[in-house]
Amino acid sequence: MRTGRLEAFSDGVIAIIITIMVLEIKVPHGHELAELQSLLPVFISYVLSFIYIGIYWNNHHHMFQAAEHVNGAVLWANIHLLFWLSLVPFASGWMGENHFALWPVVLYGFILLMNGMAYYILLRVLIKLHGENSTLGIAIGKDVKGKISVVIYSIAIALAFVSPWIGLALYGVVAAMWLIPDTRIEKRLVEKSAE
Amino acid sequence: MRTGRLEAFSDGVIAIIITIMVLEIKVPHGHELAELQSLLPVFISYVLSFIYIGIYWNNHHHMFQAAEHVNGAVLWANIHLLFWLSLVPFASGWMGENHFALWPVVLYGFILLMNGMAYYILLRVLIKLHGENSTLGIAIGKDVKGKISVVIYSIAIALAFVSPWIGLALYGVVAAMWLIPDTRIEKRLVEKSAE
Amino acid sequence: MRTGRLEAFSDGVIAIIITIMVLEIKVPHGHELAELQSLLPVFISYVLSFIYIGIYWNNHHHMFQAAEHVNGAVLWANIHLLFWLSLVPFASGWMGENHFALWPVVLYGFILLMNGMAYYILLRVLIKLHGENSTLGIAIGKDVKGKISVVIYSIAIALAFVSPWIGLALYGVVAAMWLIPDTRIEKRLVEKSAE
Amino acid sequence: MRTGRLEAFSDGVIAIIITIMVLEIKVPHGHELAELQSLLPVFISYVLSFIYIGIYWNNHHHMFQAAEHVNGAVLWANIHLLFWLSLVPFASGWMGENHFALWPVVLYGFILLMNGMAYYILLRVLIKLHGENSTLGIAIGKDVKGKISVVIYSIAIALAFVSPWIGLALYGVVAAMWLIPDTRIEKRLVEKSAE
Repeated sequence: MRTGRLEAFSDGVIAIIITIMVLEIKVPHGHELAELQSLLPVFISYVLSFIYIGIYWNNHHHMFQAAEHVNGAVLWANIHLLFWLSLVPFASGWMGENHFALWPVVLYGFILLMNGMAYYILLRVLIKLHGENSTLGIAIGKDVKGKISVVIYSIAIALAFVSPWIGLALYGVVAAMWLIPDTRIEKRLVEKSAE
Repeated sequence: MRTGRLEAFSDGVIAIIITIMVLEIKVPHGHELAELQSLLPVFISYVLSFIYIGIYWNNHHHMFQAAEHVNGAVLWANIHLLFWLSLVPFASGWMGENHFALWPVVLYGFILLMNGMAYYILLRVLIKLHGENSTLGIAIGKDVKGKISVVIYSIAIALAFVSPWIGLALYGVVAAMWLIPDTRIEKRLVEKSAE
Repeated sequence: MRTGRLEAFSDGVIAIIITIMVLEIKVPHGHELAELQSLLPVFISYVLSFIYIGIYWNNHHHMFQAAEHVNGAVLWANIHLLFWLSLVPFASGWMGENHFALWPVVLYGFILLMNGMAYYILLRVLIKLHGENSTLGIAIGKDVKGKISVVIYSIAIALAFVSPWIGLALYGVVAAMWLIPDTRIEKRLVEKSAE
Repeated sequence: MRTGRLEAFSDGVIAIIITIMVLEIKVPHGHELAELQSLLPVFISYVLSFIYIGIYWNNHHHMFQAAEHVNGAVLWANIHLLFWLSLVPFASGWMGENHFALWPVVLYGFILLMNGMAYYILLRVLIKLHGENSTLGIAIGKDVKGKISVVIYSIAIALAFVSPWIGLALYGVVAAMWLIPDTRIEKRLVEKSAE
């Protein structure tokens, strides 16, 4: 099976997730500048989640750039990832509306953690299909970055019980770490085409 | 007519259906962990429906992998399937919000039943176009799994009047049955390319 | 310019329009069968609109099957059509929620009329680009069906002031007329490939 | 990296943005013609925003028609543009619901300004990748139109403090300016294929 339709479906789902989040920023009834101030926490939550979904689309794009074909297991590992991504708008809205209170911040971290693990599972299923010595297998290597993210998420959730702001800051650290594009796959593709 | 645009349109509609369902999980006003507990039935309903829509996308993907062209009848049989799929979020939301009460569970089963029948109609229209001896015709064969599903849905709806939980359990059984990917088409495609 | 991206964008917009209409069928709070009865007008309105949007997607598909390239004027004529299509969910919701009262039925007819005219404009712009003697130009011919639709919509709106049900019945007549797939383009394509 | 998936994802996001805006036009409870009158400001706001999003899709289409490949920086510059586009429905809804009061009009202008700048950044990142002497680089030239837009937006925001209607009128002027399709890229593509 070709990767085309899986990519198209994932693009559709991710495009909807990233866009419906904006519906959480409810249009205020008044028309004063102060109305916007009260929306600030929801807006910050939106920005963080937009960046996260953007990162996932970006990495998904890179991953399937290197993938050559898919099977039933890949389809389901991908739907599993989309499931956890689909819960980001809910967690994001809850966190923003409650001004970054403890439990919403913990839930947000938990959803990020599950996304990280779902992404890792998808990666392993793809590597199993293509082989450890395939372009994909070599490019990703030990997936250090992915493993570090999951560790930081776990620490962030634990430290959120000290202060939610510490947790939130650590979610930001992971986002910043991924904003630097995943050059591993690009490098390997360039190397391969140069061979 | 090529299958490309029908697949793209279906991907779009299915992607939206699977994603807007999450809007039924309304962001609670409080920020305590207990708030999430009250969302549990809606969440369970969401998970089940997400899996069902995922199954339909998966099978739709397999089906059109084997299809080579479409005509007006296929376009309409496909839109008919999308119509019944589009009602899943409503039935899912009603069922979750009412904690799996009788009528919502019956309606949910009815919608699943109509989806099963719409899928079967689409399959027959496609086979009629390609011929019984086409890759598609041979791969699907007698569509035993599809027929069993429709029978189980009917039994599930009837037994829901004894207890909605029996109905719900049977919906889960059908989902589990389909989660095992439809290897019939894949097998036949492999056989054909090996000839 | 190729037609690919215009088709992809239109598929996306039409897929969203056809799907968000279901959000007008609000999940009722009670769990009795009677709750569904009160949703019947909204549901009928949904079915009619789903069929209409399906017809437009179908005809749009046929139209661009025959088109070979696009220019700026086609892009804007297409966005103009999408604009009027995007108002169908609103008119449909208003009509259903008010049990087919006079003004909502009139507005619904007006939106259908504008859609019919926007479709006709798109067609003329495409024919102007491809020439009257192109596959597209010959296949569509005088577009009798499109013109009849616009006339019936106008009569339907006028007769709605006698009784909204007459107007509604005539909207159904036009839908039935279009449900018969537009075989003109298919015929011409077959003829051309046979030459 | 090819441009295909970036275009598909952008098409998806823009299609959703342009369509969910219609959800701001809430279905009124009454069924008299007068109900529509009270929706007029929201509707005008919708029309203006629909045109703006249409313009961006159109220009985005032209831009990537001329682009040959993308890198990580382009992906992020594109997501950055989609972020500002995603805020148009919110600003549009706020402006319409408050009958074009001062601050909503100012915010709307600010969002348009940020979109203009995000578009410009995307353009520069693409030109940097393809070279100033590429088809894209030569076609866009000095991007006079883009720079003028940003200047007019700034003036419009300032003059909105005199009267919001002046600001609104200037937003309309920029829209009208862009409705004339961007013939620069088309011209250069025609010239190139003629060489």
